[in-house]
Amino acid sequence: MLKFDKQKQIESVQGALALRTQIEKVVDGLWEDGFDGIYFFGIGGTWASGMQAEVYMRGKSSLPVFVENAAEFNTTGNRRFTSRSIVICSSVTGSTQEMIVAVEKIKKIGARVFGFIDREDTPLANICDYCISYPGNEQLKFYMTANRFMFKNGEFPEYERYNSEMEENLARVLIEVEEQADGFAQEYAHRKLAYVKEHPEMPHYFVGGGNQWGATYSYAMCYWEEQFWFRTKSVTTAEFFHGTLEIIDRDTPVTLFMGEDEQRPLAERVAKFLPKVCSNYTVIDTRDYELRGISPEFRGSISHLVMHGVNNRVDAHLEQVFCHPMQIRRYYRQFDY
Amino acid sequence: MLKFDKQKQIESVQGALALRTQIEKVVDGLWEDGFDGIYFFGIGGTWASGMQAEVYMRGKSSLPVFVENAAEFNTTGNRRFTSRSIVICSSVTGSTQEMIVAVEKIKKIGARVFGFIDREDTPLANICDYCISYPGNEQLKFYMTANRFMFKNGEFPEYERYNSEMEENLARVLIEVEEQADGFAQEYAHRKLAYVKEHPEMPHYFVGGGNQWGATYSYAMCYWEEQFWFRTKSVTTAEFFHGTLEIIDRDTPVTLFMGEDEQRPLAERVAKFLPKVCSNYTVIDTRDYELRGISPEFRGSISHLVMHGVNNRVDAHLEQVFCHPMQIRRYYRQFDY
Repeated sequence: MLKFDKQKQIESVQGALALRTQIEKVVDGLWEDGFDGIYFFGIGGTWASGMQAEVYMRGKSSLPVFVENAAEFNTTGNRRFTSRSIVICSSVTGSTQEMIVAVEKIKKIGARVFGFIDREDTPLANICDYCISYPGNEQLKFYMTANRFMFKNGEFPEYERYNSEMEENLARVLIEVEEQADGFAQEYAHRKLAYVKEHPEMPHYFVGGGNQWGATYSYAMCYWEEQFWFRTKSVTTAEFFHGTLEIIDRDTPVTLFMGEDEQRPLAERVAKFLPKVCSNYTVIDTRDYELRGISPEFRGSISHLVMHGVNNRVDAHLEQVFCHPMQIRRYYRQFDY
Repeated sequence: MLKFDKQKQIESVQGALALRTQIEKVVDGLWEDGFDGIYFFGIGGTWASGMQAEVYMRGKSSLPVFVENAAEFNTTGNRRFTSRSIVICSSVTGSTQEMIVAVEKIKKIGARVFGFIDREDTPLANICDYCISYPGNEQLKFYMTANRFMFKNGEFPEYERYNSEMEENLARVLIEVEEQADGFAQEYAHRKLAYVKEHPEMPHYFVGGGNQWGATYSYAMCYWEEQFWFRTKSVTTAEFFHGTLEIIDRDTPVTLFMGEDEQRPLAERVAKFLPKVCSNYTVIDTRDYELRGISPEFRGSISHLVMHGVNNRVDAHLEQVFCHPMQIRRYYRQFDY
């Protein structure tokens, strides 16, 4: 399989899960000190991960959990954000411009910052009150943090069983997802190439909701737009029916991300609608993956990781089929703007 | 001017502003009873209007103000939403499917609902605790409500002066905006037609932030997609730099909505970037409109209404130039889905 180092990926996920003791220590300390709000801060892909964590907690937790876009915070601000607030953030480079400005503002207000900053000794890593530096697995780190907060709030009685299952099975399960998805991914990438040759300007529509929305939004923007230079539009399963449906016709390329959280019925509604008006849609449904060892009631909490696994395979094939290295950028960080 | 009944529009806005006494009475009553959160509920265009109200208050008010998407509330729910919460909503038809389900759920929880339901004696109008039925002007009604809450919370000392200015000038000013914008709108519509003939599948990119984001999102989706069947993608000025910028090239059609609220610097960054990589962009800047009688410090609070005025003219010309009546729908409410 292309770009697939099984052992390395297993170790990466297992290592992230092993951060639990550290994460618990930080969250428990923050809990002891008290807070008036938990804010997932981000921009671009990290903002999308924050949206996933917020929607994950929204229906389960009475804790005041919010998502804040760094650039919006730097301009509009947020009067509800105080010295008693907690910030959770993540950065691979540790140098995202808008996040540095935001964290400086946050520190002036006096709030506490818990950062997953992959590179140590970077501007962001140095300014955090609590920092864990471990590469990748951003969404998993956020969910582990969310889970601990819910546990502390008495909203996650199955916390120990949940973690045992994840620590025992998640890394393997995500590998199995990639292995199972590879054939589909190859076919999908070739289909995309054939389509783009005929329709170079047509956007590809991505639809997803719940904890798939962050995946949908960032996959369309941070992967297809930024890394492949494909035109896309993303829309939630809820909002799809309030505008976007009208421009779907027979040949419009649509990919629906279906997960297994509470918003699955909204995705099912889209899945039921699409074949009536479109013959060029694809459904990626996490339910099609066995996830051996994960209890049915926990599947929804990793739907976005399953989708990420599928999309890893799609990316590997797109990169090859389109002869387009994912590292190259036209403009991003190429000149000042 | 096409589809432009000056007297009718003046009366419409003036009538909405005259709802102030009623709105104040409702808000003051809600204030007396207390609350743990103010939730702007909506879906599609009304959700977008809620986003505008929330971002308007975010930087100015310590009140707990949130936006909630009806379909997400019906599935994911929101554990922070309680019997002490207040719902503000709006509907033209009074029969939006997702909103009816949401309001029934809200009533079961025991929260209070303040609705602007244009048609009396509809399912939504009948279920609200407080209902004002007056046609159109949704965004203005939301802002009037927001303003009263901020006044009650001691965050709007210039409230009386603000309202005097609006009641004296807003209706006329918005007419003047439409009159000034009409020439531009006609040219823009013709340019769009010429472009679409050459590039029938290319999406049109709309970029906007702050209280222009609701305008940007809903204009792209509820107007261009739903009413004109044009392909679009909307993105915030903050997020534009984290993916979407990469697929903008010389001929990509981009329209930037610039307003005058706190997020204007983010729009300025996009305005500065675009000419470096694109020769087919349009900037609509509310600052180009005089707004005679409106103090500089209040302009930002009506930027979205100014943009709406400009877009009214664009719509009128698009409808004519494209020979596409805005009322027709391919699918929406045409069959069950």
